[in-house]
Parts: sequence; structure tokens; C-alpha cells
Amino acid sequence: MSLVRIHNFSVSLDGFGTGEGQSLESPFGHAGQRLHPWMFATRFGREMLGQEGGGRGADDAFAAQFMPGIGAEIMGANKFGPPGWQDDADWKGWWGPNPPFHTPTYVLTHRPRPSIEMEGGTTFHFLDATPEEALAVAREGAGGLDVRIGGGVSVVRDFLAAGLVDHAHFAVAPIVLGRGERLWDGLEGLESSYDVESVTTASGTTHVTFTRS
Amino acid sequence: MSLVRIHNFSVSLDGFGTGEGQSLESPFGHAGQRLHPWMFATRFGREMLGQEGGGRGADDAFAAQFMPGIGAEIMGANKFGPPGWQDDADWKGWWGPNPPFHTPTYVLTHRPRPSIEMEGGTTFHFLDATPEEALAVAREGAGGLDVRIGGGVSVVRDFLAAGLVDHAHFAVAPIVLGRGERLWDGLEGLESSYDVESVTTASGTTHVTFTRS
Repeated sequence: MSLVRIHNFSVSLDGFGTGEGQSLESPFGHAGQRLHPWMFATRFGREMLGQEGGGRGADDAFAAQFMPGIGAEIMGANKFGPPGWQDDADWKGWWGPNPPFHTPTYVLTHRPRPSIEMEGGTTFHFLDATPEEALAVAREGAGGLDVRIGGGVSVVRDFLAAGLVDHAHFAVAPIVLGRGERLWDGLEGLESSYDVESVTTASGTTHVTFTRS
Repeated sequence: MSLVRIHNFSVSLDGFGTGEGQSLESPFGHAGQRLHPWMFATRFGREMLGQEGGGRGADDAFAAQFMPGIGAEIMGANKFGPPGWQDDADWKGWWGPNPPFHTPTYVLTHRPRPSIEMEGGTTFHFLDATPEEALAVAREGAGGLDVRIGGGVSVVRDFLAAGLVDHAHFAVAPIVLGRGERLWDGLEGLESSYDVESVTTASGTTHVTFTRS
């Protein structure tokens, strides 16, 4: 059975998944890199940036779950580009010619455009659709493999609220971000449908997994 | 040097320190006991309830830090009683004749009343004061020992925001509470003045300590 999964989604102690003031220069707004230092210190994170090295400990074990078994990603407009990217006909995402998805990748937007084939197996498709409709399309594209919900915050929240997610991994960074977009709003009692496990690693990050029970 | 400390303050994944709808029957509102099961499963927690047994593992090690070295507590009106307790001349707190404080205990309220001497060393004093003023009085009462900030949520937040806290221990329960009073509001960047450590125990609770750096 094809699962719907979330991986490596960082959130602050106060529940913000991104900061205030997102822009081309600051994809996470005033949060900068403070939500994700754990990931970019891992072998997996370095490799995503085309760099060598990085730790191979517990943070890496979580981070590396991102890829295996995934056949498609669904992401929101806010993950694909900075505010206003829909007005830039040449915008092809943040990630350069070879994005780190390597599967069909479905971008939810009210202003769809033609698909864009990138290097390395990533093809961006654009959908104006509900979570349920998008998932049906993505499952088709995933060819029996799992579908990853890639973010940003509101897309993760929408899929969780709709009960569509089978497994979710959040990395709680030990910071009080103060402002931004709240992950947990509207998800009261989420834990009741899941087995929840937590572990804190040497980086001070607490990895919390929700697995459908 | 006398320190200002916070212990055993539970908070949900989404940052709520108490639920909605606090009342005589439900001190934590709709949260019920869901924020504190870790504590009442420990030897320390059982003892506070006058019961035997309880675990002696990592949760107990954190919980038991509550008492040693403390010479006074400051608490808010919302911890001392349910909404409206100020209209009940006979209200003496939730805890029966022998409250688990065993020191002078300063209750912040805009409607002070005469002090109440309880069994076991607890005396309730009532103060209409700012955090700084209350701390000066409590330090006097503590006789050189540390002062604990006992809650509720807004008092903890006020003392943290005023930079008065030297050590704080929060227990993050793996639940999405959804509604209630938010602990972290107004505390953006709190971590920058503290060494922060986290550890998750077998109960699934993540203990996060802030120690003045």
C-alpha cells in the first residue's frame, strides 16, 4: 500500500514551521537557517547541497528517510518559490537545474502552468486542486511508491487535518522563533490517531514521529 | 547566590501550558491530566498525592529537582485557585491542609488578603506587585535559598520576559492541545540567553532545560 509521508519538517519549540517575511533572499524569513542546522550538519544534508562530509549519527538516520520508497512529492506554492513567483515565467524553483526530488513533483497553485522537466528525474507539475485530488494525481505519478508531502507549513497542515498522512517526522529545534507560520493550528488531538515517538539527539534536536496506529 | 528557578512546567507540542476552560473541577481546562501524566507516574508525583510507588527513572530525576534548595515560591492568581476564588473568603488553594510547597509562598493578585499559615511550613502571602517587586519580597522570605516561579502560564511568561529566571525546566508532552494559554508568546529568542538541553525519556516526554549562560 502506498503511504503518504512527511520528512525532515523542522518546527520551533513554539510551533512555527517558518519565520516571518519570506522572500527570495530569505526562504524561511527571519528564521534564517535556525530551524535546520541539524539537517545541514548531516551527510544527507551536505549531499543535498553538493558538499562532502557531514555527520552519520542519529540526525542523519532521520534525514536520510527522506528518499527511499518515495515516488512523488506534493508541495505548496510557498515552498516552490518566494511570494510572487507566479508572475515570473522563468521561475523553476530554488534548487537549480537538478532539484533534490528526483521524482514527479506536484506544485499546488491557483495559477497552474505547463510542466517543467528538470535534470535528475524531477518534473514539476502544477495543480489547482484540493489535497484529496492532488493526492490521487500524485499516487498515479508515484507508480505504487509512497507520496511525500514536502511543505510548506500550510500544505503540511492541510494534509494532516484532512487525515491523509500515514507517517510524519518533525524535527523540533530548541528555539523560540516568536513569529511566522504556525504548524499545529487546527490539529487538536492529532496524536490520538497515531503512535507518537520522540528522541533527542546530540545536536539538541528532538525528532518526533507520528505513525498511523 | 540565590537563583530563580522553574520546575516541572508541562507544555504541549503546540506550546500550550494549560487548556481552555479552567474551573474548580478542571484546573487545566480541557487538557485534563494530559499535560502531566509523566509526573504522576513518578515516585515524586505519587508522593505529592500522598500515594506510594511510582517510577524512579529519568522523569523522577527531573521531577524531584522541584524541592531541593528552594526557600520560597511565587505563583499567579490562576495557579492558586479557579476563576473567582478571590470572592471566596475561605479559599485556601487546591492542595488541602498541607500543600506541597513547605515554604513561604507568594500569590500574585490584585486583591490581596491576609496571610494564611498552612501545615507543613507553607504560608500563603498575597501580593499586588510587579515581578521585580515580588521577587525582592520572596528573596527576603527565602532566607538565602532559591525562589521557584510556580506558574500559571502568564506568571512564568512574565518572569521569563523580564529576564528574571536563572533556570527553567519544561516538560514537553507529545500532544497537540489546540487551545488554551500559550507559554512561548512574547519570548522570541529566549534561547540566546541560556544553555538549552533536551532529553526525551521513556514516557515520551521531552525535558528541555534553559540554564542562564
